[in-house]
Amino acid sequence: MSILVVGSVAFDTLSAPSGHRDRVLGGAATHFALAASFFTPVRVVGVVGKDFGPRQQSVFDEKKIDTAGIEHADGLSFHWTGSYEGTMAEAKTLGTDLNVFGSFSPKIPASYADSDYLFLANIDPVLQLQVRRQMPNVKLVAGDTMNYWINDHRENLLKVLAELDILIINDGEARLLSGEHNLVTAAKKVMELGPKSLVIKHGEYGATAFFSERSFTGSDGVPTPFRAPALPIETVVDPTGAGDSFAGGFYGYIASQPKLTPAVLRKALFYGGVMGSFAVEKFGTERLQNTTREEIEERFQLFRAISHLDIEAS
Amino acid sequence: MSILVVGSVAFDTLSAPSGHRDRVLGGAATHFALAASFFTPVRVVGVVGKDFGPRQQSVFDEKKIDTAGIEHADGLSFHWTGSYEGTMAEAKTLGTDLNVFGSFSPKIPASYADSDYLFLANIDPVLQLQVRRQMPNVKLVAGDTMNYWINDHRENLLKVLAELDILIINDGEARLLSGEHNLVTAAKKVMELGPKSLVIKHGEYGATAFFSERSFTGSDGVPTPFRAPALPIETVVDPTGAGDSFAGGFYGYIASQPKLTPAVLRKALFYGGVMGSFAVEKFGTERLQNTTREEIEERFQLFRAISHLDIEAS
Repeated sequence: MSILVVGSVAFDTLSAPSGHRDRVLGGAATHFALAASFFTPVRVVGVVGKDFGPRQQSVFDEKKIDTAGIEHADGLSFHWTGSYEGTMAEAKTLGTDLNVFGSFSPKIPASYADSDYLFLANIDPVLQLQVRRQMPNVKLVAGDTMNYWINDHRENLLKVLAELDILIINDGEARLLSGEHNLVTAAKKVMELGPKSLVIKHGEYGATAFFSERSFTGSDGVPTPFRAPALPIETVVDPTGAGDSFAGGFYGYIASQPKLTPAVLRKALFYGGVMGSFAVEKFGTERLQNTTREEIEERFQLFRAISHLDIEAS
Repeated sequence: MSILVVGSVAFDTLSAPSGHRDRVLGGAATHFALAASFFTPVRVVGVVGKDFGPRQQSVFDEKKIDTAGIEHADGLSFHWTGSYEGTMAEAKTLGTDLNVFGSFSPKIPASYADSDYLFLANIDPVLQLQVRRQMPNVKLVAGDTMNYWINDHRENLLKVLAELDILIINDGEARLLSGEHNLVTAAKKVMELGPKSLVIKHGEYGATAFFSERSFTGSDGVPTPFRAPALPIETVVDPTGAGDSFAGGFYGYIASQPKLTPAVLRKALFYGGVMGSFAVEKFGTERLQNTTREEIEERFQLFRAISHLDIEAS
């Protein structure tokens, strides 16, 4: 079933030990949409400027991503400049030009009204809430956020958290949001703020999902926390968008399934890891543009092989 | 089959958010031996002082750990003082009194000569090598080390690495030893120094094993890197000895199996995680002293449940 994602569609200027790229297509909604598009139809709500042309549009078109909700405004698109060093675990932001994104007010096309799954990518919680309010009947709402909103826009963020079925954040964000060092305690406190399920991403170490019974519309066993591996990768070219690609693979798989069960959520975490592992192999969206469902399934089996006790001899 | 472990048998004075303990039984060889004793017979080579009395001895005796190789010297036992704060990921060392350990020269009792598995716990690589030379016919040699030996005794350490079937270290040590940020690259470089297999521990995120075909005496499939989870734990009382307990569970399980195959190594990583997860639940050796094989199997199943896609409904 269709996912509606609201978030940034942007240009990224990137520096890493592997090289430099000027103004490649990026943004949370872009990475998310590309990753999710391998599993389910995706619809994007966002805003771009005059610099977003046919070349960028074709990236969405090739994956049959619905862009009716991408507004074309006067001015330039959101432009982020960042660099990676050392372990490449964290980006250093060198510049954030909001441009047309600074006055973005999400408008949802009538053709998106029947979307069953909503993903609120990392944007101002006020905008996340606006979109949520316009889509009261979705089956499932998931979202992301970041340190800036946690620190400086907490009141607004809390209103969003109260609406979420699934929150997807990283270790640092979970600790900041909860004020707790221990990740299990942090997870409990974050879930008390609203999210029925919580996925905490550990970067190169994988991800852990915490969930309560009320997360599921179906059950195939007692839900325990679940840990999914990340692929040990030697050549990380560009980590930008890895988290959004993870979210896209995770949520895309969920939206492709008839109901949310613990087993579906476990597999979704693996698909999240798979899409994140592709994303980092090339700059920008290049690797996600060029993967195939067959490659995804192959890598899914690799994720199984590196984490499961009983694997097929081959 | 029997494991011979050489390493510290010590007293630890510990401070953590959960409390304070004065001079509890500790040391790498102690934690390792206790964890491994649930799987296979263990023999210890080490040195203690006058402060090591019947109460400490009984901890080994209760687990039928052979202490014929623990020398009783004049003076006091090795005493380490440390504290934990925040995420408790790393100890702050407040004091290291080597005492009788400062002039330790390992002597291997004749009754240990038929040991098939050798574990060189984290001690001066000169001593590790002395023990290795006295046990030329063991089936498998594994070992540990730490930053201090990597930084200041590298030449000696390299001689030990050349002798190892399996090296068990953490992220920071792998990076320091290889000079590489990326863990896959780091693993390759470390294995070029000698170890046929490498286990890198990621603390609360689990562990990754890297191995080459030459690691195994039997095969049940193509060995890929393997990632084992750690248990998400809310109440970490005392992380001291968690890494040694991991090594004990890991190597104890391997020594209990007829041959080393990729499947055995994968299960061994899980048992390592299981024993590490027990170790942190109480101060010192308390939790390892009081666990049972049944509890270990139960937790092994929990490790499977939190990491495997297909689990039994219950």
